[in-house]
Amino acid sequence: MKKFFEASSVTVVGVSNSPTNLGRAIVYNMLRYQFPGVMYLVGPRGGSFMGFRIYRSVMETPEPTDLAVLLIPARAVPDVLVQCGEKGIKRVVVESGGFSELGDERRELEDKIRDILRRYGMRLIGPNCIGIINRWTGLAVPFMPIEPEAPPGHIGIISQSGGVGGSILNSLGAENLGYSLFASIGNKLNTDECDILEHYLSDDRTRVIFCYLEGINDGRRLMELASTHDKPVILFKSNCNEASRNIARSHSASLAADDSVVSAACRQAGIIRVESQQEAIEALKGFSLPPVKGNRLAVISRSGGHAVIAADAAGEFGFELPPFPDKLIRAVEEKSRAGVIRFQNPLDLGDVFDFDLYLNLARESAGNPDFDCLLFVHHYQGLFDRESSRKLIEAIPQVVSETGKPIALCVFTPYRELLHNKQSVKFPIFTDPREAVKVLALSRDFYTLRPEALGSAVSAVEFSEEARLILQGSPAGVMHPFDAGTFLKACGLPLVPWKKATDEEEAAEKAGEIGFPVVLKTANPAIVHKTDAGGVFLGIESEKDLRKAYGELSRLGPEVIVQKMVPSQGVEWIVGGKKDPNFGPVIITGSGGIIVEVFKDVSMRVAPVGKEEAERMILETKGASLLREFRGRRAMNIDALTDLVVRTSQILYAFPRIAELDLNPVMVTPEGISVLDWRIFLAE
Amino acid sequence: MKKFFEASSVTVVGVSNSPTNLGRAIVYNMLRYQFPGVMYLVGPRGGSFMGFRIYRSVMETPEPTDLAVLLIPARAVPDVLVQCGEKGIKRVVVESGGFSELGDERRELEDKIRDILRRYGMRLIGPNCIGIINRWTGLAVPFMPIEPEAPPGHIGIISQSGGVGGSILNSLGAENLGYSLFASIGNKLNTDECDILEHYLSDDRTRVIFCYLEGINDGRRLMELASTHDKPVILFKSNCNEASRNIARSHSASLAADDSVVSAACRQAGIIRVESQQEAIEALKGFSLPPVKGNRLAVISRSGGHAVIAADAAGEFGFELPPFPDKLIRAVEEKSRAGVIRFQNPLDLGDVFDFDLYLNLARESAGNPDFDCLLFVHHYQGLFDRESSRKLIEAIPQVVSETGKPIALCVFTPYRELLHNKQSVKFPIFTDPREAVKVLALSRDFYTLRPEALGSAVSAVEFSEEARLILQGSPAGVMHPFDAGTFLKACGLPLVPWKKATDEEEAAEKAGEIGFPVVLKTANPAIVHKTDAGGVFLGIESEKDLRKAYGELSRLGPEVIVQKMVPSQGVEWIVGGKKDPNFGPVIITGSGGIIVEVFKDVSMRVAPVGKEEAERMILETKGASLLREFRGRRAMNIDALTDLVVRTSQILYAFPRIAELDLNPVMVTPEGISVLDWRIFLAE
Repeated sequence: MKKFFEASSVTVVGVSNSPTNLGRAIVYNMLRYQFPGVMYLVGPRGGSFMGFRIYRSVMETPEPTDLAVLLIPARAVPDVLVQCGEKGIKRVVVESGGFSELGDERRELEDKIRDILRRYGMRLIGPNCIGIINRWTGLAVPFMPIEPEAPPGHIGIISQSGGVGGSILNSLGAENLGYSLFASIGNKLNTDECDILEHYLSDDRTRVIFCYLEGINDGRRLMELASTHDKPVILFKSNCNEASRNIARSHSASLAADDSVVSAACRQAGIIRVESQQEAIEALKGFSLPPVKGNRLAVISRSGGHAVIAADAAGEFGFELPPFPDKLIRAVEEKSRAGVIRFQNPLDLGDVFDFDLYLNLARESAGNPDFDCLLFVHHYQGLFDRESSRKLIEAIPQVVSETGKPIALCVFTPYRELLHNKQSVKFPIFTDPREAVKVLALSRDFYTLRPEALGSAVSAVEFSEEARLILQGSPAGVMHPFDAGTFLKACGLPLVPWKKATDEEEAAEKAGEIGFPVVLKTANPAIVHKTDAGGVFLGIESEKDLRKAYGELSRLGPEVIVQKMVPSQGVEWIVGGKKDPNFGPVIITGSGGIIVEVFKDVSMRVAPVGKEEAERMILETKGASLLREFRGRRAMNIDALTDLVVRTSQILYAFPRIAELDLNPVMVTPEGISVLDWRIFLAE
Repeated sequence: MKKFFEASSVTVVGVSNSPTNLGRAIVYNMLRYQFPGVMYLVGPRGGSFMGFRIYRSVMETPEPTDLAVLLIPARAVPDVLVQCGEKGIKRVVVESGGFSELGDERRELEDKIRDILRRYGMRLIGPNCIGIINRWTGLAVPFMPIEPEAPPGHIGIISQSGGVGGSILNSLGAENLGYSLFASIGNKLNTDECDILEHYLSDDRTRVIFCYLEGINDGRRLMELASTHDKPVILFKSNCNEASRNIARSHSASLAADDSVVSAACRQAGIIRVESQQEAIEALKGFSLPPVKGNRLAVISRSGGHAVIAADAAGEFGFELPPFPDKLIRAVEEKSRAGVIRFQNPLDLGDVFDFDLYLNLARESAGNPDFDCLLFVHHYQGLFDRESSRKLIEAIPQVVSETGKPIALCVFTPYRELLHNKQSVKFPIFTDPREAVKVLALSRDFYTLRPEALGSAVSAVEFSEEARLILQGSPAGVMHPFDAGTFLKACGLPLVPWKKATDEEEAAEKAGEIGFPVVLKTANPAIVHKTDAGGVFLGIESEKDLRKAYGELSRLGPEVIVQKMVPSQGVEWIVGGKKDPNFGPVIITGSGGIIVEVFKDVSMRVAPVGKEEAERMILETKGASLLREFRGRRAMNIDALTDLVVRTSQILYAFPRIAELDLNPVMVTPEGISVLDWRIFLAE
């Protein structure tokens, strides 16, 4: 990928002198961004544009370049790619639309392109995109003319949509936030978000990465990349419901992942997921500050009302507001009119008009090891305090770089003045204290709760040959409960003692072996809700009762399961999983029984998970309070439950044919756990 | 209040020529806002300022004015108020700080002021505020110099904090949103938010109201005002947790209401609660559009990515995206390059560059009765399309006023161009499609789900003399379970059949009368969690077992309750209430039993509620799905439960001494309901 972004010579194919020609904008951008390398223009009609000769074909150009950019009709793309290949150009950005986004009949065209790429060992970004920018080198090939308002900086941008990408650059310009690299990836024919992300993660100038995606190609690779690097990755993932999927199919041919899986995967991999473009920009502002490495926030505000609002936000986002330390008080007291400042946190500067004091407060607080971050709210109308306010605002970035402490600077002032401020410092300025505290919290969570790298949980789990064979022998669809039970037992899960029976005599015999009381339930795989169908008889105390129950049950089929009746003194739980098309196996766990359907109190992760992550999953459910000591009742065996979650996640990972798996209920008691019912659905 | 805002003559007290004098800013504002009436300045040192004579006292001024504004030391306020009274000035704004916000010892000063106001029949706004503005008349008395950037318009603003109020005016200026009236109310000594709100609701130029509050003086009056008028009231209530309460006490001496009560009251009264200043501005933009009267949204976007994002938002905020009707398709098809536009909704304009078509689409969609509102997303970079884009953006407000249909216009473009747009139209411009759809939803919910006016639920409920007497005779604290039970029965609640007993013989006798099986429980009022204390014996089948149970129970005291054992075939529910210091009695209901503590699945309203609202409460809990038909089980008697909620809410309202009331569990069965346990806590 590096060769794309570091290209020092470019061939632009599809330029003409016509006033409707979009290729001209590519040339315009290259000039505006002051690309220092060589550029050749190509267009079938020849001629010249802005002093550049337009060659009639790639073959005619004087030499192969590091990169070619194509903005020509879709059907002409293969031929030009061949020319590039012949010429020796190895990297191509195809900005043209007219491929699979218009329907499946265009897939053939894409396949043809794949062949050509393979033949010549070329890489391609696009098609159906606006291309790439390297803000530091001046490489800027979008056909959308984007003014270089946003300065060179350290944000890397990946956008599936050119429109969203372009508007993100506008927003960065408005905030005077710098970026390093930009890529719009369109149909992802040969290069997807992970290819680009991998490059950004290794690029020295890129320190924080923003991704806008409508579909995720390889969820696991995305997670692995994000969780094994220290750079924050901010993801705005759209295309989350039916309505958007309809439009997206024709827009960028995306396959939408189940949205809750995406959220779970992000949490697990430490990816910061945002819900809107605005939230993305705020997050990028937050991550332009030094890392927030702890939970102690100092708030200094010139307006009492905003101090109250900031305190609310501190509470909402889990910050402590420790008192300002004596040392700091003494340092500032000398400068303060006696008694006017009360040293509480948030600190309301009230009617103190002393800008040196303001700055000193910020500097002393930032320098103080008792605070992990600061919120500084400055409100001015400008009639009497414009110059001093501007000086103050310009001094804050200096304090940040001196102390390495993040200061979220929030300014309220008339909009022209605010604009002036934003353009006069290369430093994020917030306009809402709650928003500022929220992004400080994002930074804190990112830097203090780094995830286990995905895959580190995968110890070399080997399951028995028996388990493997049972699964191999089972056809697609609902697995027979006998087989599913035998399989899970062979995988080492703590199933309740159970036996299969296929007639009344056998059932009676097995019940005797297990010992009364027993449960008798149908083993007909077609029945989903066994209890509702009258397929479960609990608490059978004698052979007579068992035979009676079998008589009634046999109308659902002769095959039954006899199992030990477990006293209901514990907590009902669920452990399960499914296979997501983008992220592969996911594991869920939470409150079981009737609560599953009513309260949906479950947590989710991409499988497999280690012990630590499994415990975190259990503890983040509300029902976890029932597992702990509860009004004097003994705590349940969370450890055994954790093992079950880990083991189940390994099963899901090891056997990709498992499309769905349900262990519900799992009875958790102070002594241990017991899986009382199970269900597996297999894919082809 | 009208006399404050329509004042045509003003006396400003506290002006001097000193460069640190803040009173000068009041004069500055009055001149900048072009106040057309008479203004007299007063200051003890006399002299002149900007051509105005400074009188040495109010008594010296030539005539009484409609309004006086005081910005003088707190201790001098009473004397000047007396002068105003003597002079015949009936309305005063006191902007000075130094009153109860500095501590309780200043309350005396406030009491003194109250006396003076009473004596002269005067009204006062403040103290500790920045005063009021009438943007239409030019009355502008804040001591904070605020440029008149925001034009005259229809938003009324009430802000407890001057700083927040001032910064809201900055934000309105940035959005070019107009306002009518502004009031900062500070310590609310004589005038609170409701007094101002009442005036705004009757003011013709004010169509939507924004309130920033740190404390709510009279929650019920606020609800009544909001719910009996058609103007949207947007509330940003801060001071929601411990941290903010600490700072707020010294800021504006506010008493914080329990935050969940505030949210419940807002929902109930149709008040739109927002969580930040930014959200407030977005909401004000939304309510500047014509009302959204239904659920059908049309989305037109020039960028495919933003169309996908808009579709997500439509799903998230409950909008339908009906297809564009044939009529519209035909009207536009003539103008479209054949086959390029696919008429799905959201409509992605793709690479169509036809600005007449864009506008025509907006006009036709807005005129179409099949759509209730529109989102129009326009993205342009400006090199080729600046002029046509500006023309388009300027034409949209015209379409809105012609059709009366709300169009949320969302623009992505470089920031200078965006600024130009915002200032060139008096029309809201959004910068995030999700935010735009969210505020369309706020408008839809406001105009389609108007609340019952609070109080309309209060039928003239009379409770029996017996109930009244029991309560009168009970001391403060936990009510004796005997008395509480008798009281609730006398109020007509469906308590399980129960009897009191004070020794073993009596218990046995009562059990016989009730009929086995029975429950025996302690009636010791000191025991909160009876079950945990071993104070409940369930399912007693015989007199022998009863006597044994009594033997064990009597260690908790001789008084017991014998009650009918109810089979546990229903759903456990809770009905309860408490008294909020700002909103009075509130009623809650939701899933009962152990679920109360773990899932907190309850809904809340200010009491009393009518049948409709009570049913809404029940149905908005998650547990409601257990009350409905559930996997073939019969539905529970929701009607009887609704009656219980209504009746309980009437009890809470009729007997203000009830500080807390708990009916938990209430057993709800298909046949009816039965209150199994109860607890009442009385105030003095």
